[in-house]
Amino acid sequence: MRALTLDGSTVRVRDVPEPTPAPDTAVVRVTLAGVCNTDLELVRGYMGFSGVLGHEFVGVVEDGPEEWRGRRVVGEINFACGACESCARGLGRHCPTRRVMGIQDADGALAERVAVPVANLHAVPDAVPDTRAVFTEPLAAAFEIPEQVAVEPGMTCVVLGDGKLGLLAAQVLAASGAQVRCVGHHDAKLALLAKRGIETVLERDWSPEPTDLVVEATGTAGGFAAAVATTRPRGTLVLKSTVAEHPSLDLAPLVIHEISVVGSRCGPFAPALAALEANAVEVDDLVTERIPLAQGALALERARRSAALKVLVEP
Amino acid sequence: MRALTLDGSTVRVRDVPEPTPAPDTAVVRVTLAGVCNTDLELVRGYMGFSGVLGHEFVGVVEDGPEEWRGRRVVGEINFACGACESCARGLGRHCPTRRVMGIQDADGALAERVAVPVANLHAVPDAVPDTRAVFTEPLAAAFEIPEQVAVEPGMTCVVLGDGKLGLLAAQVLAASGAQVRCVGHHDAKLALLAKRGIETVLERDWSPEPTDLVVEATGTAGGFAAAVATTRPRGTLVLKSTVAEHPSLDLAPLVIHEISVVGSRCGPFAPALAALEANAVEVDDLVTERIPLAQGALALERARRSAALKVLVEP
Repeated sequence: MRALTLDGSTVRVRDVPEPTPAPDTAVVRVTLAGVCNTDLELVRGYMGFSGVLGHEFVGVVEDGPEEWRGRRVVGEINFACGACESCARGLGRHCPTRRVMGIQDADGALAERVAVPVANLHAVPDAVPDTRAVFTEPLAAAFEIPEQVAVEPGMTCVVLGDGKLGLLAAQVLAASGAQVRCVGHHDAKLALLAKRGIETVLERDWSPEPTDLVVEATGTAGGFAAAVATTRPRGTLVLKSTVAEHPSLDLAPLVIHEISVVGSRCGPFAPALAALEANAVEVDDLVTERIPLAQGALALERARRSAALKVLVEP
Repeated sequence: MRALTLDGSTVRVRDVPEPTPAPDTAVVRVTLAGVCNTDLELVRGYMGFSGVLGHEFVGVVEDGPEEWRGRRVVGEINFACGACESCARGLGRHCPTRRVMGIQDADGALAERVAVPVANLHAVPDAVPDTRAVFTEPLAAAFEIPEQVAVEPGMTCVVLGDGKLGLLAAQVLAASGAQVRCVGHHDAKLALLAKRGIETVLERDWSPEPTDLVVEATGTAGGFAAAVATTRPRGTLVLKSTVAEHPSLDLAPLVIHEISVVGSRCGPFAPALAALEANAVEVDDLVTERIPLAQGALALERARRSAALKVLVEP
């Protein structure tokens, strides 16, 4: 089958063996996949990954347990062992021996087909078309925030970053009742939020003000210090960006102001699918373009442009 | 009156004006005071403080409201405005216009007398002698941890650092039911905990292991990375150290393992006094020596020695 693979720093579409069916594993025919910033980081060497890229997808189960065959699905990306202490605590996403689709020891979904543990599958409601279902994984990462932090109606919230995750997080937090302000660099991206009644400001026009909940989703090494500067005493800073750099940081303000920093990664699929079904979160406007899998390397190039939001890939 | 003052980097005992009585303020005759690492940092330029040093004390109210006169007291060190939004939320310790005894815009307690807002006074129970009552402020900083983080019986806990705060925090957490292990550099200091049944290990013999709750109390720039390395996925890292350096830090593990970092500073006096009264925390063994106020500069020198724990000053 055709797949977009990473080998060293070489990205190309090539023929790879079909995923092998295994017990407890489904083979999903991918109908639509998304490019994530993590894919771009992987190409830069993050995680030292080699294999088929991609961890955002929607598709149809082709092979696997009878009850799943033919169903339209999305899939969680952390493949947990199911037997260790973390898994027993319900923290499969933190299983120390986990494989991660398209990121660590498991082939990804920028391909014609992908193997997914049955335990990771979620059926997609009929009302959610593929173009929206493909956002389940990144939207789940935004839903991880209210999973970790109590979001109370009226609390002030600043989302730093107007990339895909920033735009999704701002919507999820606004839907939870927070007074959200998104700080970004791109008028066009911020306009997507403004259209939904969410306050936005260009970073050059913004001054930090004490804020209850700050989400750092800039994807840059400088984002953390900016986030600290705008978190109120005893406030919470949700850290989403992983950056390759190790910036020089002053942690004293965390102690002096007793700030809590909450690292946040993948999230729960169920509330993401429910929000997509209820049309509670705008994702259609986030699609920058659709590119055939045959031009997968081009899809990554396009996703890297600063004006880009979500680039979708069609197998 | 005599007082230990800091002026630029000059520390000396000299005559200063008596504290002026004011409404809502008591003048306390200091009977015993303690030297804190923060005092040593102030001498190095932290906060740019000039004035009378010292914020750990016990004494007797000499002037102030009738009902307080003659009472033996300790005092909270953050002098809040009482009128702002932070104060209204009960976060007086984070009042943005606060003065801080011996640290910021307020003279301290390494003196014959000190002025303290009446709202900050706590009466010392008769059963708590001065030599123990003088530990109320640093012990309150340790009690801030269970105030901020749910400490559950049986949870694993590593305290990094065998300084005064580390030894107090280890005891407070052990008393809360956590399985505490303290990692330090000094056999003699760790022995104080071992004597109370708390597990200890020299840092050179220690390997990080996934731990539910990690307290970083090393007072060093390297402590944070060590603390991150031993916090389990979804675990909590309580950050106590403030250091002047801005080390180069990798924050990606916070995101990947969804670790929460909780900055922690001053704490509640009531549980500290209650623990001292109940003899639930060992502090007597932490006293390295007692030095007369007339030799206050020497007291700071002695406190700086790596083998030292608490140096007390007698006005």
